Amino acid sequence: VSAPESERLARAALSCVGEPGSIPLTAEVSAKGGQRAYDDLLAGRSLLSEDLAARTERVDPAAELQRAAETGIRFVVPGDEEWPAVLDDLAFAEELQQRGGIPVGLWVRGQRRLDEMAHHAVAVVGSRAATSYGSQLAADIGAGVAAAGPTVVSGAAFGVDFHAHRGALAVEGPTVAVLAGGVDRAYPEKHTPLLAHIARTGLVVSEAPLGAASMRVRFLARNRLIAALSRGTVVVEAAVRSGALNTATWTVHLGRTLMGVPGPVNSAASVGVHQLIRSRGAVLVTGPAEVLEAVGPMGSFLLTEPRGPRHPRDLLPVADRQVLDAVPVIQPALTESVARTAGVHPGRARQALDRLLEAGLVECTEGAWRAVSDRRAPSAPGG
Amino acid sequence: VSAPESERLARAALSCVGEPGSIPLTAEVSAKGGQRAYDDLLAGRSLLSEDLAARTERVDPAAELQRAAETGIRFVVPGDEEWPAVLDDLAFAEELQQRGGIPVGLWVRGQRRLDEMAHHAVAVVGSRAATSYGSQLAADIGAGVAAAGPTVVSGAAFGVDFHAHRGALAVEGPTVAVLAGGVDRAYPEKHTPLLAHIARTGLVVSEAPLGAASMRVRFLARNRLIAALSRGTVVVEAAVRSGALNTATWTVHLGRTLMGVPGPVNSAASVGVHQLIRSRGAVLVTGPAEVLEAVGPMGSFLLTEPRGPRHPRDLLPVADRQVLDAVPVIQPALTESVARTAGVHPGRARQALDRLLEAGLVECTEGAWRAVSDRRAPSAPGG
Repeated sequence: VSAPESERLARAALSCVGEPGSIPLTAEVSAKGGQRAYDDLLAGRSLLSEDLAARTERVDPAAELQRAAETGIRFVVPGDEEWPAVLDDLAFAEELQQRGGIPVGLWVRGQRRLDEMAHHAVAVVGSRAATSYGSQLAADIGAGVAAAGPTVVSGAAFGVDFHAHRGALAVEGPTVAVLAGGVDRAYPEKHTPLLAHIARTGLVVSEAPLGAASMRVRFLARNRLIAALSRGTVVVEAAVRSGALNTATWTVHLGRTLMGVPGPVNSAASVGVHQLIRSRGAVLVTGPAEVLEAVGPMGSFLLTEPRGPRHPRDLLPVADRQVLDAVPVIQPALTESVARTAGVHPGRARQALDRLLEAGLVECTEGAWRAVSDRRAPSAPGG
Repeated sequence: VSAPESERLARAALSCVGEPGSIPLTAEVSAKGGQRAYDDLLAGRSLLSEDLAARTERVDPAAELQRAAETGIRFVVPGDEEWPAVLDDLAFAEELQQRGGIPVGLWVRGQRRLDEMAHHAVAVVGSRAATSYGSQLAADIGAGVAAAGPTVVSGAAFGVDFHAHRGALAVEGPTVAVLAGGVDRAYPEKHTPLLAHIARTGLVVSEAPLGAASMRVRFLARNRLIAALSRGTVVVEAAVRSGALNTATWTVHLGRTLMGVPGPVNSAASVGVHQLIRSRGAVLVTGPAEVLEAVGPMGSFLLTEPRGPRHPRDLLPVADRQVLDAVPVIQPALTESVARTAGVHPGRARQALDRLLEAGLVECTEGAWRAVSDRRAPSAPGG
């Protein structure tokens, strides 16, 4: 199944001139379909700007698609089998920062099918100025999520994005990079090898045409795709004004699961994440298992909460525990002395001591009792 | 206003022999009052144990109160003006670990009135094996809360408790230590000076009689008092099996506000806190201001969420921002070049540039445009 060629050509032309996530454009194309939107625009029957019309006229979409194909890049549009249905949620998302809507099409670099990679995906995003803590966690989560099957979606930026992709690649797991500029242009340039690696095993995707620069407003449009392609977004580190918070907002508006990794409260790189947990309903996650639990289909990836080791004393009735607490560890004591310390009747103390002896928790030498030493374990309920 | 002397004597006798938080005892005394519970016990008309009756008979409560008074210790009971009404909530709290109920009375060391100190109080508890991070935060929160007025309640243990009290004392703020053993016995012994300091400016309180040792089950009973005396409990650090989690459970059962301070996810000392936030509904707090906001009477201690600095560019329409992004920072560019980079019509670009010039965001020399440099600020929406 694929979209009609005329539809692909029309959308390619519009994609080459329109700004990613431009609401008038995405709304028009969603309402009319690409071909009618394109025809109306060229015939002056459109509410879109004359400026856009003039530039559209100068585009040769067949040549653009040809040029893309020569470097292994395809243009995926609604109607293609490969089109991820999850992107259609963008039609209903609230408009953020004047960007929004279903993309006209996506430029895709890589062999894998986009719909399959987006079938069960998790976005891992965060600060470009990640600390070593954030970098390590991004890599751990990237690796743990990808090793379990789901795709790690991120933005290929410095910092958290880089380490999230790197973690997924390290376990030869699936990962998708969504760029603000053209998929033929590495941004940041230093990540040319990273993006080449991702394109070999996963996908590099963008709403912007080939050659497009990564400008600020395009990051905002791009962030909505990261959120929409994923079942949930993990924010690993984010300062108060991090772009990752924009992705977080898209995640909430799209009804996806928002997650945040906490960090030291005195780390500026964690302030934004703590705010997301405090006031945006982000689920606190501390590692990949909790991420998988939060985004998995119901019942999959269930977790057992971490527990301390069980101690035999936990199983004792309170009265016996009280007697056990009164038994000295070093210098053995007589039953009467233990009873006094425990504040119980000597007869009761003796019965409890016999049970404790049987449980191996105390030992008795010539009528004097001493506790067996495993009690140094971290079971103190003091705090 | 104070309770009748006979009631105080009866309760003192029961306190001297009963185990703190023993449910049969607290239930009996709450139902019948101290005096009738005492009389019934001695007359063999009680469901309480004969063992307890025999020991009660041997107690001279007047002598006990006299002995306490000689070291500046008083025994506060329901009916006293000083009795904190908040403790009555313990009658309805679910039983935890077989401890519970309203205490028969409280042994109090210090000049201040208990009801006044408990009027607006916050518990700050956590691991005895606190890290330097946890110690610092406990002190910060202790100081910040106490400086704002509310009392800092804790358990005078090593680690988080110590630092919470220390923080409050450092700002000469109110603090209350609730002990598992007698208020005349410093536990841990090393905290003798701390407890003396607290007794001078605040209060040292216990349900256990003078001379009582700090045994494990008494910590569980003690934790319910820490939770009940406070509007909310902040857990600063807690490993998976920390006693602070018992205080957290009491806090939830009593309908008080539970709070947790996050930390690095790879710190064992924060694992218990993260679990509280994940699965027990604890509010994530990062400092004293957020603690005060969470426990304050409605509308007091309101916070403004931290925000990054506002940049003039934030106030621009998206189209102008897009043009601004296309203006070079180093080498000035002509209007046509800016328009091409921005992907807009030159006429539009020119209008935008004029607005940007007026806003002081770009400068123009001989028809060439350059961005004014405050744009290095951390406002990048990439992430």
